[in-house]
Amino acid sequence: MALAATRATPGDSEFDRDTAVKARPGEPGTYDLDLSPGWVIVSAVNGGFLLAAVGRALRAELAQDDPITITGHYLTASLPGPAVIRVQTVRTGRSLSTGQASLYQFDADGNEVERLRVLAGYGDLTALPDDVRTSATPPEMPGYDACVPGNDPPAGGPIIGSTALLDRLDLRLDPATAGWAVGAPSGVGDMRGWLGLADGRDHDPLSVLLAVDALPPTAFDLGLSGWTPTLELTVHQRCHPAPGPLRVAVTTRNLAGGLMEEDAQVWDTKDRLVAQSRQLARAPRVPSRPRPDA
Amino acid sequence: MALAATRATPGDSEFDRDTAVKARPGEPGTYDLDLSPGWVIVSAVNGGFLLAAVGRALRAELAQDDPITITGHYLTASLPGPAVIRVQTVRTGRSLSTGQASLYQFDADGNEVERLRVLAGYGDLTALPDDVRTSATPPEMPGYDACVPGNDPPAGGPIIGSTALLDRLDLRLDPATAGWAVGAPSGVGDMRGWLGLADGRDHDPLSVLLAVDALPPTAFDLGLSGWTPTLELTVHQRCHPAPGPLRVAVTTRNLAGGLMEEDAQVWDTKDRLVAQSRQLARAPRVPSRPRPDA
Repeated sequence: MALAATRATPGDSEFDRDTAVKARPGEPGTYDLDLSPGWVIVSAVNGGFLLAAVGRALRAELAQDDPITITGHYLTASLPGPAVIRVQTVRTGRSLSTGQASLYQFDADGNEVERLRVLAGYGDLTALPDDVRTSATPPEMPGYDACVPGNDPPAGGPIIGSTALLDRLDLRLDPATAGWAVGAPSGVGDMRGWLGLADGRDHDPLSVLLAVDALPPTAFDLGLSGWTPTLELTVHQRCHPAPGPLRVAVTTRNLAGGLMEEDAQVWDTKDRLVAQSRQLARAPRVPSRPRPDA
Repeated sequence: MALAATRATPGDSEFDRDTAVKARPGEPGTYDLDLSPGWVIVSAVNGGFLLAAVGRALRAELAQDDPITITGHYLTASLPGPAVIRVQTVRTGRSLSTGQASLYQFDADGNEVERLRVLAGYGDLTALPDDVRTSATPPEMPGYDACVPGNDPPAGGPIIGSTALLDRLDLRLDPATAGWAVGAPSGVGDMRGWLGLADGRDHDPLSVLLAVDALPPTAFDLGLSGWTPTLELTVHQRCHPAPGPLRVAVTTRNLAGGLMEEDAQVWDTKDRLVAQSRQLARAPRVPSRPRPDA
């Protein structure tokens, strides 16, 4: 997908409209929203997108705006449709405030079913001291134009189900980690790419929560197919990202016991490590292979 | 500290006695405990120890025994003395059950003050499939006998306050990451060591929660002194550790905005990566220097 001709802006974009939460009158801390089908991957709404929606509700309640450390435990798969988020302020601090939130949907009888429970510490990223002693280095990968558009995966590839999410992203994969799309995964367990939003909206600390979970799963690079459901995802942020696409580098080093971690580093166009995340996911158990008809 | 002549066992050890929680009659999900001064470091009870105590209360409530993914958000510093843990079952699943818990202590008026809030997914580590595709390798470090006892840090060093915790550990540091003790930190941000418990008790999934937070902070290796309070700590476990001391390797790659991550890998004597953890901590701001009188 090419970049949109007219760039959307934070506050007026697909991402902002679809993560918008509406305070329920008379019920403090309660927010309604509608989960758009546009953020589905395989068979469920993307976990990073859900964390961003809950993150927006937490921002509305807490004394500070930025999720500095946020953890989500994913209980059941989220589907497009109505949802409600309930937020509790745990502790209000001068530099860090802690909140808890749950996202619920509804069963056939209208009963609430919890999808996701979140704990988070919010602060003001712009108020942090500017000391930096980072020995990590930006991911070695080609420039945006030399990377592979990741929005049109081939039929017969390892994505088994919906790819709606990909239409909302401006994703360019490092060719070294895109071999899975042509039946030739590297076997290393890496995934790297440039990540913008399709409508050109620049990133902010809420969309970074999406960014850490938006690349194809590293399982594809290990030669595995299918869904990699997130059990738990924690994101740490250190600064507001500069304008432009982010470089996201995800690695898996320990697939064991049917589980795998995905560690993501998020770098901005000023070569700053703006966020680190780790998730624990169920490893898919289906070896991928090129289909005869692919 | 030498290993104890008579080895303690899981269930009958300092660690087990001090993390013991007592169900409060008539109040489901409520557990009392007394935080021993033996697990204090600098000025507060060690965060990994607290997570283990809460982990024991969660084990008592949930359908499964092992913390596979557990996250603690640290709200206020815990001190020796009475505490109460309240546990809520969030979701009971066949292979993974989710729980939430809070640890409280009491102010001068007897009001509860929340210290720590935890979300966790419990399962049965022994029931996980035995597929392993781990590309991580055990830390390169000398054997136990060639490492440096870490229990007797020098006066004038970067630990400013109590070192009681160290008497409960059998800690041997890799000499390459122990330079801080003699005023010569490497500047890299690494800490590695062999870690047992002083009374010889072998590790289990509860004591692993202590192990990930028990080494000296990587800040010392960066040449910084003082306390590194944990804001958030997440631990993922993949199997029960084999008997014998664990190798724990901790790295910090991103000190920025007054915050630092500490990533720990925990390897057992069978060369299995039994656990991974990451914490976000406040970086100490005091450069360490050898004191003239040290």
